[in-house]
Amino acid sequence: MTGKCAVVLLSGGLDSATVLAMAKDQGYSCYVLSFDYGQRSLTELNAARIVAMEADVVEHRVLRLNLEDFGGSALTDHNLSMPESDTDDVQEEGIPLTYVPARNTVFLSLALGWAEVLDASAIFIGVNAVDYSGYPDCRPEFIRAFEAMAALATRQGVEGKPIRIHTPLIDLTKAQIIQAGTALGMDYANTVSCYQADDEGRACGRCDSCRLRAKGFEQAGVPDPTRYQP
Amino acid sequence: MTGKCAVVLLSGGLDSATVLAMAKDQGYSCYVLSFDYGQRSLTELNAARIVAMEADVVEHRVLRLNLEDFGGSALTDHNLSMPESDTDDVQEEGIPLTYVPARNTVFLSLALGWAEVLDASAIFIGVNAVDYSGYPDCRPEFIRAFEAMAALATRQGVEGKPIRIHTPLIDLTKAQIIQAGTALGMDYANTVSCYQADDEGRACGRCDSCRLRAKGFEQAGVPDPTRYQP
Repeated sequence: MTGKCAVVLLSGGLDSATVLAMAKDQGYSCYVLSFDYGQRSLTELNAARIVAMEADVVEHRVLRLNLEDFGGSALTDHNLSMPESDTDDVQEEGIPLTYVPARNTVFLSLALGWAEVLDASAIFIGVNAVDYSGYPDCRPEFIRAFEAMAALATRQGVEGKPIRIHTPLIDLTKAQIIQAGTALGMDYANTVSCYQADDEGRACGRCDSCRLRAKGFEQAGVPDPTRYQP
Repeated sequence: MTGKCAVVLLSGGLDSATVLAMAKDQGYSCYVLSFDYGQRSLTELNAARIVAMEADVVEHRVLRLNLEDFGGSALTDHNLSMPESDTDDVQEEGIPLTYVPARNTVFLSLALGWAEVLDASAIFIGVNAVDYSGYPDCRPEFIRAFEAMAALATRQGVEGKPIRIHTPLIDLTKAQIIQAGTALGMDYANTVSCYQADDEGRACGRCDSCRLRAKGFEQAGVPDPTRYQP
């Protein structure tokens, strides 16, 4: 392998698509990893496939993980209803209902396994501590602790070349993320953020994720290419 | 839920079966987690089902994980041949061929997700730093780093009740593990350690894992109930 190489976690949403554009822009050969973990919106996975293809990545793998067996989240537990906001304040108190137990830990661990085999020097993940402050595994201190653990867990770490976890979005607002991606030529029409998107990838416009996204485009001063359900 | 509750990782091998017996002996209600990750020996998973049933656990879940897609290990890559020893020295130099990339990180992460949903206070894993010293993710410093990361990743950690990782075998020799399990009434005939066991769970007697196990019974002074291929 020539040049530097990274595993990039891609959900198909706006944030991770921006991270992929950033990793490419930094000169990494990108191996993209997505998860089919029983999330409600398979549309997001279809979006991930399109985004990865458009970004001309080296490889895109989708791992099936039946996390829905564990339950405990409105994102995977179909017996819980999705939170909807009637106000402009889309922040929730405490840990939100859409929290998937240990999700970023699981995703980063699997990315770490692939990175170790590929001898990749970096993993990119689109965690963000601004918009989703209720998730414990989106905090910078979690990421640093994961990196320290990974340095002890892997061959690369033992050999003194630990795999780094890159979180280029961690301190950005949604508007700043959209501005950065737009500057890199991202076409956000291919991304899906809605928890309840229909089969054609059209957003509901009502859930927290839709409201955050719409507000982001508005504040960024970038035209919103999101397709909404009629 | 009344009383204390733990997630126990169970492969169906001798070590993890002993850990399950120890967790039960310590008074934990045990939720047992196994993985079907493309390992050669599905016989080991059948052994896990029998061991879990015999131990009368609260629940046993088997998660399918297609780690074989990542390659890089003789345990999951069918193009690599298994190492066999012709000498009594079954230790290998450096990191062994049977190392599965980030395996314990991935297994512990998924156990963490389930533990968070169950509100379990502990995860038990049968890592051992004596017999398998070539695996970076079997070292005590890795386990402590994982625990520190987990405390930042989960709701329990945020609320000041971090989930603890228990590794009761970490400093024991194979003989000491067998003696401890035998004292707790373990029937090791149900466990499979062989990387190349046949469909009836009979061991090859030649691979490193078989040799370590046989030597363990010999040194423990416990009759070896292992069934070998004819």
